[in-house]
Amino acid sequence: MEVYSSEIAKLIEELGRLPGIGSKSAQRLAFHIINMKEEDVRRLSETMVHAKQNVRYCKECYTLTDQELCPICANERRNHKVIMVVENPRDLAAYEKTGKYEGVYHVLHGAISPMLGIGPNDIKLKELMHRLQGDIEELILATNSSLEGETTAMYISKLVKPTGIRITQIASGVPVGGDLEYIDEVTLLRALEGRVEL
Amino acid sequence: MEVYSSEIAKLIEELGRLPGIGSKSAQRLAFHIINMKEEDVRRLSETMVHAKQNVRYCKECYTLTDQELCPICANERRNHKVIMVVENPRDLAAYEKTGKYEGVYHVLHGAISPMLGIGPNDIKLKELMHRLQGDIEELILATNSSLEGETTAMYISKLVKPTGIRITQIASGVPVGGDLEYIDEVTLLRALEGRVEL
Repeated sequence: MEVYSSEIAKLIEELGRLPGIGSKSAQRLAFHIINMKEEDVRRLSETMVHAKQNVRYCKECYTLTDQELCPICANERRNHKVIMVVENPRDLAAYEKTGKYEGVYHVLHGAISPMLGIGPNDIKLKELMHRLQGDIEELILATNSSLEGETTAMYISKLVKPTGIRITQIASGVPVGGDLEYIDEVTLLRALEGRVEL
Repeated sequence: MEVYSSEIAKLIEELGRLPGIGSKSAQRLAFHIINMKEEDVRRLSETMVHAKQNVRYCKECYTLTDQELCPICANERRNHKVIMVVENPRDLAAYEKTGKYEGVYHVLHGAISPMLGIGPNDIKLKELMHRLQGDIEELILATNSSLEGETTAMYISKLVKPTGIRITQIASGVPVGGDLEYIDEVTLLRALEGRVEL
Protein backbone atom coordinates (compact mmCIF):
# COMPACT_ATOMS: atom_id res chain seq x y z
CA MET A 1 0.00 0.00 0.00
CA GLU A 2 1.24 3.45 -0.91
CA VAL A 3 1.64 5.49 2.24
CA TYR A 4 2.83 8.65 0.54
CA SER A 5 1.56 10.19 -2.65
CA SER A 6 3.94 9.88 -5.56
CA GLU A 7 5.73 13.26 -5.47
CA ILE A 8 6.55 12.75 -1.81
CA ALA A 9 7.54 9.13 -2.29
CA LYS A 10 9.88 10.18 -5.12
CA LEU A 11 11.52 12.85 -3.00
CA ILE A 12 12.00 10.46 -0.09
CA GLU A 13 13.51 7.91 -2.47
CA GLU A 14 15.93 10.44 -4.00
CA LEU A 15 17.02 11.74 -0.61
CA GLY A 16 17.42 8.20 0.71
CA ARG A 17 20.09 7.54 -1.92
CA LEU A 18 22.42 10.08 -0.33
CA PRO A 19 25.12 8.65 1.94
CA GLY A 20 24.28 8.49 5.62
CA ILE A 21 20.60 9.27 5.00
CA GLY A 22 18.45 6.35 6.13
CA SER A 23 14.77 6.01 5.40
CA LYS A 24 13.71 7.88 8.56
CA SER A 25 16.04 10.82 7.83
CA ALA A 26 14.90 10.87 4.23
CA GLN A 27 11.29 11.21 5.40
CA ARG A 28 12.16 13.95 7.85
CA LEU A 29 14.18 15.84 5.23
CA ALA A 30 11.44 15.45 2.62
CA PHE A 31 8.79 16.94 4.89
CA HIS A 32 11.16 19.71 5.88
CA ILE A 33 11.79 20.56 2.22
CA ILE A 34 8.07 20.55 1.48
CA ASN A 35 7.55 22.97 4.35
CA MET A 36 10.41 25.29 3.31
CA LYS A 37 9.70 28.51 1.40
CA GLU A 38 9.69 27.90 -2.32
CA GLU A 39 12.54 30.37 -2.88
CA ASP A 40 14.68 28.50 -0.34
CA VAL A 41 14.05 25.17 -2.05
CA ARG A 42 14.97 26.75 -5.38
CA ARG A 43 18.19 28.17 -3.95
CA LEU A 44 19.22 24.83 -2.43
CA SER A 45 18.37 23.06 -5.65
CA GLU A 46 20.29 25.51 -7.85
CA THR A 47 23.30 25.51 -5.54
CA MET A 48 23.53 21.75 -5.96
CA VAL A 49 23.41 21.88 -9.73
CA HIS A 50 25.86 24.80 -9.94
CA ALA A 51 28.34 23.16 -7.61
CA LYS A 52 28.13 19.96 -9.65
CA GLN A 53 28.67 21.88 -12.89
CA ASN A 54 31.45 24.21 -11.78
CA VAL A 55 33.48 22.22 -9.32
CA ARG A 56 36.53 20.43 -10.70
CA TYR A 57 39.93 19.23 -9.52
CA CYS A 58 42.61 21.78 -8.63
CA LYS A 59 45.21 21.20 -11.34
CA GLU A 60 47.95 21.19 -8.72
CA CYS A 61 46.70 19.26 -5.67
CA TYR A 62 43.49 17.67 -7.00
CA THR A 63 41.24 18.93 -4.24
CA LEU A 64 37.82 20.13 -5.43
CA THR A 65 37.59 23.78 -6.41
CA ASP A 66 35.69 26.10 -8.75
CA GLN A 67 38.90 27.76 -9.97
CA GLU A 68 41.83 26.34 -11.92
CA LEU A 69 43.87 26.43 -8.71
CA CYS A 70 42.37 25.96 -5.24
CA PRO A 71 42.77 28.82 -2.74
CA ILE A 72 45.61 26.97 -1.00
CA CYS A 73 47.69 26.22 -4.11
CA ALA A 74 47.06 29.77 -5.31
CA ASN A 75 48.36 31.22 -2.03
CA GLU A 76 51.99 32.34 -2.44
CA ARG A 77 52.56 32.55 1.28
CA ARG A 78 52.12 28.78 1.65
CA ASN A 79 55.24 26.62 1.54
CA HIS A 80 54.93 24.83 -1.78
CA LYS A 81 57.93 22.62 -1.00
CA VAL A 82 56.05 20.68 1.67
CA ILE A 83 53.20 18.45 0.50
CA MET A 84 50.77 16.68 2.83
CA VAL A 85 49.08 13.66 1.24
CA VAL A 86 45.45 13.15 2.32
CA GLU A 87 42.75 10.78 1.15
CA ASN A 88 40.00 13.31 0.47
CA PRO A 89 39.07 17.00 0.64
CA ARG A 90 37.40 16.54 4.05
CA ASP A 91 40.71 15.43 5.55
CA LEU A 92 42.34 18.47 3.95
CA ALA A 93 39.67 20.67 5.52
CA ALA A 94 40.26 19.06 8.93
CA TYR A 95 43.99 19.91 8.83
CA GLU A 96 43.29 23.34 7.40
CA LYS A 97 41.07 24.10 10.38
CA THR A 98 44.03 23.70 12.74
CA GLY A 99 45.35 26.86 11.08
CA LYS A 100 48.92 25.71 11.79
CA TYR A 101 49.94 23.88 8.63
CA GLU A 102 51.75 26.11 6.16
CA GLY A 103 52.51 23.65 3.38
CA VAL A 104 50.27 22.49 0.54
CA TYR A 105 48.33 19.27 0.02
CA HIS A 106 47.83 16.43 -2.38
CA VAL A 107 44.40 14.79 -2.43
CA LEU A 108 44.41 11.14 -3.48
CA HIS A 109 40.63 10.74 -3.69
CA GLY A 110 40.71 7.35 -2.09
CA ALA A 111 43.10 4.79 -0.67
CA ILE A 112 44.46 1.53 -1.99
CA SER A 113 42.11 -1.29 -1.07
CA PRO A 114 42.59 -4.76 -2.55
CA MET A 115 39.29 -5.74 -0.88
CA LEU A 116 37.35 -3.10 -2.80
CA GLY A 117 39.46 -3.54 -5.92
CA ILE A 118 40.97 -0.05 -5.64
CA GLY A 119 44.55 -0.12 -6.92
CA PRO A 120 47.30 2.52 -7.17
CA ASN A 121 45.98 3.63 -10.57
CA ASP A 122 42.55 4.39 -9.17
CA ILE A 123 43.80 7.21 -6.93
CA LYS A 124 45.75 10.38 -7.80
CA LEU A 125 49.16 8.73 -7.34
CA LYS A 126 50.68 9.28 -10.81
CA GLU A 127 49.77 12.94 -10.31
CA LEU A 128 51.61 12.97 -6.98
CA MET A 129 54.72 11.40 -8.51
CA HIS A 130 54.61 14.02 -11.24
CA ARG A 131 54.54 16.83 -8.65
CA LEU A 132 57.51 15.31 -6.83
CA GLN A 133 59.67 15.96 -9.89
CA GLY A 134 59.57 19.63 -8.85
CA ASP A 135 61.44 21.23 -5.97
CA ILE A 136 59.93 19.37 -3.00
CA GLU A 137 61.55 19.10 0.43
CA GLU A 138 59.13 17.01 2.42
CA LEU A 139 56.22 14.68 1.82
CA ILE A 140 53.94 14.23 4.86
CA LEU A 141 51.73 11.14 4.73
CA ALA A 142 48.40 11.84 6.40
CA THR A 143 46.25 9.02 5.06
CA ASN A 144 43.84 7.53 7.60
CA SER A 145 45.14 5.05 10.13
CA SER A 146 42.87 2.35 8.68
CA LEU A 147 44.17 -0.72 6.88
CA GLU A 148 43.65 1.01 3.52
CA GLY A 149 45.25 4.24 4.68
CA GLU A 150 48.29 2.45 6.06
CA THR A 151 48.65 0.33 2.92
CA THR A 152 48.56 3.48 0.82
CA ALA A 153 51.12 5.25 3.02
CA MET A 154 53.43 2.23 2.81
CA TYR A 155 53.04 2.04 -0.95
CA ILE A 156 53.78 5.75 -1.45
CA SER A 157 56.70 5.59 0.93
CA LYS A 158 58.34 2.77 -1.07
CA LEU A 159 57.66 4.56 -4.33
CA VAL A 160 59.09 7.88 -3.17
CA LYS A 161 62.11 6.61 -1.16
CA PRO A 162 64.43 6.45 -4.23
CA THR A 163 63.88 10.17 -4.95
CA GLY A 164 65.60 11.10 -1.69
CA ILE A 165 62.73 13.40 -0.67
CA ARG A 166 62.15 13.44 3.10
CA ILE A 167 59.06 11.34 3.93
CA THR A 168 57.20 11.64 7.25
CA GLN A 169 53.92 10.32 8.59
CA ILE A 170 51.60 12.01 11.09
CA ALA A 171 51.72 10.45 14.57
CA SER A 172 49.22 7.87 15.80
CA GLY A 173 48.30 7.92 19.46
CA VAL A 174 45.79 8.77 22.13
CA PRO A 175 43.57 11.73 21.14
CA VAL A 176 44.01 14.84 23.25
CA GLY A 177 41.50 14.76 26.11
CA GLY A 178 40.81 11.09 25.36
CA ASP A 179 40.12 8.91 28.38
CA LEU A 180 42.43 5.89 28.22
CA GLU A 181 39.83 3.37 29.29
CA TYR A 182 37.64 4.15 26.29
CA ILE A 183 40.38 3.89 23.68
CA ASP A 184 40.85 0.74 21.61
CA GLU A 185 43.91 -1.46 22.14
CA VAL A 186 45.42 -0.84 18.73
CA THR A 187 45.54 2.90 19.39
CA LEU A 188 46.94 2.30 22.87
CA LEU A 189 49.70 0.10 21.43
CA ARG A 190 50.46 2.73 18.80
CA ALA A 191 50.68 5.39 21.46
CA LEU A 192 53.10 3.20 23.43
CA GLU A 193 55.27 2.44 20.41
CA GLY A 194 55.36 6.08 19.43
CA ARG A 195 56.24 7.33 22.92
CA VAL A 196 58.59 10.32 23.03
CA GLU A 197 61.28 11.38 25.52
CA LEU A 198 60.34 14.14 27.92
CA MET B 1 41.07 31.34 5.87
CA GLU B 2 38.80 29.86 3.23
CA VAL B 3 39.19 26.10 3.21
CA TYR B 4 36.73 25.45 0.42
CA SER B 5 36.23 27.42 -2.75
CA SER B 6 33.02 29.42 -2.85
CA GLU B 7 30.71 27.07 -4.79
CA ILE B 8 31.53 24.24 -2.41
CA ALA B 9 31.27 26.44 0.67
CA LYS B 10 27.84 27.61 -0.51
CA LEU B 11 26.62 24.07 -1.03
CA ILE B 12 27.88 22.99 2.40
CA GLU B 13 26.14 25.97 3.96
CA GLU B 14 22.83 25.26 2.21
CA LEU B 15 22.91 21.57 3.15
CA GLY B 16 23.87 22.42 6.73
CA ARG B 17 20.59 24.32 7.12
CA LEU B 18 18.58 21.11 6.76
CA PRO B 19 17.39 19.51 10.02
CA GLY B 20 19.68 16.86 11.47
CA ILE B 21 22.50 17.70 9.08
CA GLY B 22 25.52 18.92 11.06
CA SER B 23 28.59 20.49 9.52
CA LYS B 24 30.37 17.13 9.03
CA SER B 25 27.36 15.58 7.31
CA ALA B 26 26.93 18.68 5.17
CA GLN B 27 30.53 18.33 3.98
CA ARG B 28 30.12 14.63 3.27
CA LEU B 29 26.87 15.24 1.38
CA ALA B 30 28.35 18.14 -0.59
CA PHE B 31 31.29 16.05 -1.82
CA HIS B 32 28.95 13.21 -2.62
CA ILE B 33 26.74 15.51 -4.69
CA ILE B 34 29.75 16.92 -6.52
CA ASN B 35 30.83 13.38 -7.36
CA MET B 36 27.36 12.31 -8.53
CA LYS B 37 26.52 12.17 -12.24
CA GLU B 38 25.17 15.50 -13.42
CA GLU B 39 21.87 13.94 -14.51
CA ASP B 40 21.39 12.48 -11.02
CA VAL B 41 22.01 15.86 -9.37
CA ARG B 42 19.52 17.43 -11.76
CA ARG B 43 16.92 14.79 -10.98
CA LEU B 44 17.35 15.21 -7.21
CA SER B 45 17.21 18.96 -7.58
CA GLU B 46 14.08 18.93 -9.75
CA THR B 47 12.34 16.41 -7.52
CA MET B 48 12.80 18.79 -4.60
CA VAL B 49 11.36 21.77 -6.45
CA HIS B 50 8.46 19.75 -7.91
CA ALA B 51 7.56 18.26 -4.55
CA LYS B 52 7.62 21.72 -2.99
CA GLN B 53 5.42 23.10 -5.77
CA ASN B 54 2.90 20.30 -6.02
CA VAL B 55 2.51 18.97 -2.54
CA ARG B 56 -0.35 20.37 -0.50
CA TYR B 57 -2.66 19.31 2.31
CA CYS B 58 -5.22 16.57 1.72
CA LYS B 59 -8.51 18.46 1.97
CA GLU B 60 -9.89 15.74 4.22
CA CYS B 61 -7.15 14.65 6.65
CA TYR B 62 -4.50 17.34 6.10
CA THR B 63 -1.65 14.96 5.43
CA LEU B 64 0.66 16.02 2.60
CA THR B 65 -0.27 14.83 -0.84
CA ASP B 66 -0.01 15.86 -4.50
CA GLN B 67 -3.70 15.17 -5.13
CA GLU B 68 -6.79 16.83 -3.75
CA LEU B 69 -7.35 13.75 -1.58
CA CYS B 70 -4.51 11.60 -0.22
CA PRO B 71 -4.45 7.90 -1.24
CA ILE B 72 -5.92 6.89 2.14
CA CYS B 73 -8.85 9.32 2.13
CA ALA B 74 -9.51 8.45 -1.51
CA ASN B 75 -9.66 4.73 -0.68
CA GLU B 76 -13.30 3.61 -0.36
CA ARG B 77 -12.35 0.39 1.37
CA ARG B 78 -11.05 2.29 4.39
CA ASN B 79 -13.43 2.87 7.29
CA HIS B 80 -14.11 6.59 7.10
CA LYS B 81 -16.01 6.51 10.38
CA VAL B 82 -12.89 5.88 12.44
CA ILE B 83 -10.34 8.71 12.60
CA MET B 84 -6.88 8.39 14.12
CA VAL B 85 -5.39 11.73 15.18
CA VAL B 86 -1.61 11.97 14.67
CA GLU B 87 0.84 14.84 15.01
CA ASN B 88 2.49 14.61 11.61
CA PRO B 89 2.63 12.63 8.35
CA ARG B 90 5.58 10.54 9.59
CA ASP B 91 3.46 9.20 12.45
CA LEU B 92 0.74 8.42 9.92
CA ALA B 93 3.31 6.54 7.82
CA ALA B 94 4.47 4.60 10.88
CA TYR B 95 0.92 3.35 11.60
CA GLU B 96 0.26 2.74 7.93
CA LYS B 97 3.27 0.43 7.79
CA THR B 98 1.66 -1.89 10.32
CA GLY B 99 -0.85 -2.64 7.56
CA LYS B 100 -3.51 -3.37 10.17
CA TYR B 101 -5.30 -0.07 10.61
CA GLU B 102 -8.37 0.26 8.44
CA GLY B 103 -9.65 3.67 9.45
CA VAL B 104 -8.55 7.08 8.22
CA TYR B 105 -6.34 9.73 9.83
CA HIS B 106 -6.28 13.36 10.84
CA VAL B 107 -2.90 15.08 10.81
CA LEU B 108 -2.58 17.97 13.28
CA HIS B 109 0.80 19.21 12.04
CA GLY B 110 2.08 19.79 15.54
CA ALA B 111 1.04 19.54 19.14
CA ILE B 112 -0.07 22.10 21.69
CA SER B 113 3.00 23.47 23.48
CA PRO B 114 2.67 26.48 25.79
CA MET B 115 6.50 26.42 26.06
CA LEU B 116 6.94 26.94 22.32
CA GLY B 117 3.90 29.21 22.07
CA ILE B 118 1.94 26.69 19.98
CA GLY B 119 -1.75 26.94 20.83
CA PRO B 120 -4.85 25.05 19.66
CA ASN B 121 -5.24 27.46 16.76
CA ASP B 122 -1.78 26.69 15.41
CA ILE B 123 -2.59 23.05 14.64
CA LYS B 124 -5.34 21.53 12.47
CA LEU B 125 -7.84 21.30 15.31
CA LYS B 126 -10.69 23.41 13.91
CA GLU B 127 -10.44 21.20 10.83
CA LEU B 128 -10.78 18.10 13.02
CA MET B 129 -13.84 19.50 14.80
CA HIS B 130 -15.36 20.23 11.42
CA ARG B 131 -14.84 16.63 10.30
CA LEU B 132 -16.47 15.35 13.50
CA GLN B 133 -19.75 16.93 12.43
CA GLY B 134 -20.00 14.10 9.89
CA ASP B 135 -20.86 10.47 10.63
CA ILE B 136 -17.97 9.47 12.88
CA GLU B 137 -17.97 6.49 15.26
CA GLU B 138 -14.58 6.63 16.91
CA LEU B 139 -11.75 9.07 17.39
CA ILE B 140 -8.40 7.41 18.22
CA LEU B 141 -5.86 9.74 19.81
CA ALA B 142 -2.35 8.76 18.70
CA THR B 143 -0.40 11.89 19.54
CA ASN B 144 3.10 11.25 20.94
CA SER B 145 3.44 10.30 24.58
CA SER B 146 5.44 13.47 25.22
CA LEU B 147 4.20 16.32 27.40
CA GLU B 148 2.98 18.17 24.30
CA GLY B 149 1.35 15.09 22.81
CA GLU B 150 -0.45 14.29 26.07
CA THR B 151 -1.59 17.89 26.50
CA THR B 152 -2.99 17.83 22.98
CA ALA B 153 -4.77 14.52 23.54
CA MET B 154 -6.26 15.83 26.75
CA TYR B 155 -7.40 19.03 25.07
CA ILE B 156 -9.01 17.21 22.15
CA SER B 157 -10.65 14.73 24.49
CA LYS B 158 -12.33 17.52 26.48
CA LEU B 159 -13.40 19.29 23.31
CA VAL B 160 -14.91 16.19 21.73
CA LYS B 161 -16.54 14.62 24.80
CA PRO B 162 -19.80 16.64 24.46
CA THR B 163 -20.35 15.28 20.92
CA GLY B 164 -20.76 11.76 22.31
CA ILE B 165 -18.28 10.31 19.81
CA ARG B 166 -16.28 7.40 21.24
CA ILE B 167 -12.75 8.59 22.12
CA THR B 168 -9.85 6.19 22.65
CA GLN B 169 -6.11 6.60 23.04
CA ILE B 170 -3.38 4.20 21.91
CA ALA B 171 -1.80 2.27 24.77
CA SER B 172 1.44 3.32 26.44
CA GLY B 173 3.71 0.57 27.73
CA VAL B 174 6.79 -1.50 27.29
CA PRO B 175 7.77 -1.87 23.61
CA VAL B 176 7.58 -5.40 22.23
CA GLY B 177 10.97 -7.06 22.63
CA GLY B 178 12.06 -4.28 24.96
CA ASP B 179 14.28 -5.31 27.85
CA LEU B 180 12.75 -4.00 31.09
CA GLU B 181 16.03 -2.86 32.60
CA TYR B 182 16.65 -0.44 29.74
CA ILE B 183 13.24 1.19 29.82
CA ASP B 184 12.68 4.51 31.56
CA GLU B 185 10.62 4.66 34.75
CA VAL B 186 7.80 6.71 33.28
CA THR B 187 7.18 4.06 30.64
CA LEU B 188 7.39 1.30 33.26
CA LEU B 189 4.81 3.08 35.42
CA ARG B 190 2.55 3.55 32.41
CA ALA B 191 2.85 -0.12 31.57
CA LEU B 192 1.90 -0.99 35.15
CA GLU B 193 -1.06 1.40 35.22
CA GLY B 194 -2.28 0.10 31.89
CA ARG B 195 -1.99 -3.58 32.83
CA VAL B 196 -4.65 -5.86 31.39
CA GLU B 197 -6.35 -8.99 32.74
CA LEU B 198 -5.15 -12.30 31.27
